[in-house]
Amino acid sequence: MRYELYYWPQIQGRGEFVRLAFEEAGADYTDVARTPGGEDKMIRLMQENGAKTPPFAPPFLKAGKLLIAQTANILLYLGERLALAPKPQAGRLWVHQLQLTVADLVVEVHDTHHPIASGLYYEDQKAEAARRAEDFREQRAPKYFAYFERVLSSSGGPYLTGRRATYADLSLFQVVAGIGYAFPQLSKRLAKRHPNISRLQSRVAERPRIAAYLNSERRIPFKETGIFRAYHELDG
Amino acid sequence: MRYELYYWPQIQGRGEFVRLAFEEAGADYTDVARTPGGEDKMIRLMQENGAKTPPFAPPFLKAGKLLIAQTANILLYLGERLALAPKPQAGRLWVHQLQLTVADLVVEVHDTHHPIASGLYYEDQKAEAARRAEDFREQRAPKYFAYFERVLSSSGGPYLTGRRATYADLSLFQVVAGIGYAFPQLSKRLAKRHPNISRLQSRVAERPRIAAYLNSERRIPFKETGIFRAYHELDG
Repeated sequence: MRYELYYWPQIQGRGEFVRLAFEEAGADYTDVARTPGGEDKMIRLMQENGAKTPPFAPPFLKAGKLLIAQTANILLYLGERLALAPKPQAGRLWVHQLQLTVADLVVEVHDTHHPIASGLYYEDQKAEAARRAEDFREQRAPKYFAYFERVLSSSGGPYLTGRRATYADLSLFQVVAGIGYAFPQLSKRLAKRHPNISRLQSRVAERPRIAAYLNSERRIPFKETGIFRAYHELDG
Repeated sequence: MRYELYYWPQIQGRGEFVRLAFEEAGADYTDVARTPGGEDKMIRLMQENGAKTPPFAPPFLKAGKLLIAQTANILLYLGERLALAPKPQAGRLWVHQLQLTVADLVVEVHDTHHPIASGLYYEDQKAEAARRAEDFREQRAPKYFAYFERVLSSSGGPYLTGRRATYADLSLFQVVAGIGYAFPQLSKRLAKRHPNISRLQSRVAERPRIAAYLNSERRIPFKETGIFRAYHELDG
């Protein structure tokens, strides 16, 4: 089956978590909004009144007759099909739990530059962003990193569930890489204290299909319209 | 099987979404942290180094040998076991998608009073809260309500998937009720424009087990330490 991913074509955003899963699995997928006319098609699909399972927002996935939205939900579905999650229920739930925790971290990173309104410019909420980013650097990021470090340490590594990479590993890689781009100073401090997370970053980046993807034109660069933004003043 | 729910005993919070599912199903569950010594037990469980699937934060669930965290993940598991979700994959994914969208709305409501840091008092972020709440009233809440109204309208109602209540209906009920408590003026305006959501509220509240629960001492009241806070100045 050819999967159709629908996501904003200019940014990594939340779509990137799905792209990484497809790339790792070598899956047959189209990143529809990056094809000619695709972005209009995505917007039409979102507004279509007949849709049985309409998305609130991109990303969403067409897989045969299924239309699935919400990043973690898409990965729950793909995890099973692309062998990026354990088959037994306990393992599936655990990987999904980890993914939802990554998703919470993603919201918190996003809100460092948009604490007031996603519809306003960063320039219109810079003072608030400075305060929120400080809390992120001092409280929130260390808490999440300590958690994932602990999980990696007790799994035996190099991955969150042990020796096999799951979609949650790819997602953790992505958010940690994004924090590395947005908060280079913070990231250096965190990397020192969390050797298992640093090892996960290398291991994921070295996986042959991920390495090929990261070097390809399919990988959209980090940029200041995405979730992870290199605003020097927020890095403390 | 007797389920054990672990959540902060003083507030509805995110645990309430799980409590509502248990109550609707008439399930055999213990709200552990509300029993003598239970809160300490919860904290010990979170810090336990041997846990294979440690929670990042409450709520979490013990179900036999499983330890499951993340509200939406707990409901994904319980939905199947308590007959609060369709059995076929397409229906299960759709209900989970709806639940994750409710969860996004819950974060946005919470952040109206805590836009800067959940570790600071409201009083330390009142100015920022006023700005964020304005955006919530004008942009975000209307967008979510329009979405759920559309889903209810195309399902034929009274529930999100049609004639049977799922855990996503209980969760939507809870967040809409919470917004009613926190933002009474906003809620009146929203209710007028979204008759299907209003109908859902009544239908859920009238379900016999939910009605009994809401009238019982098991239902913790809304209060200003929870997600939904009646701060008059944020209601515009």
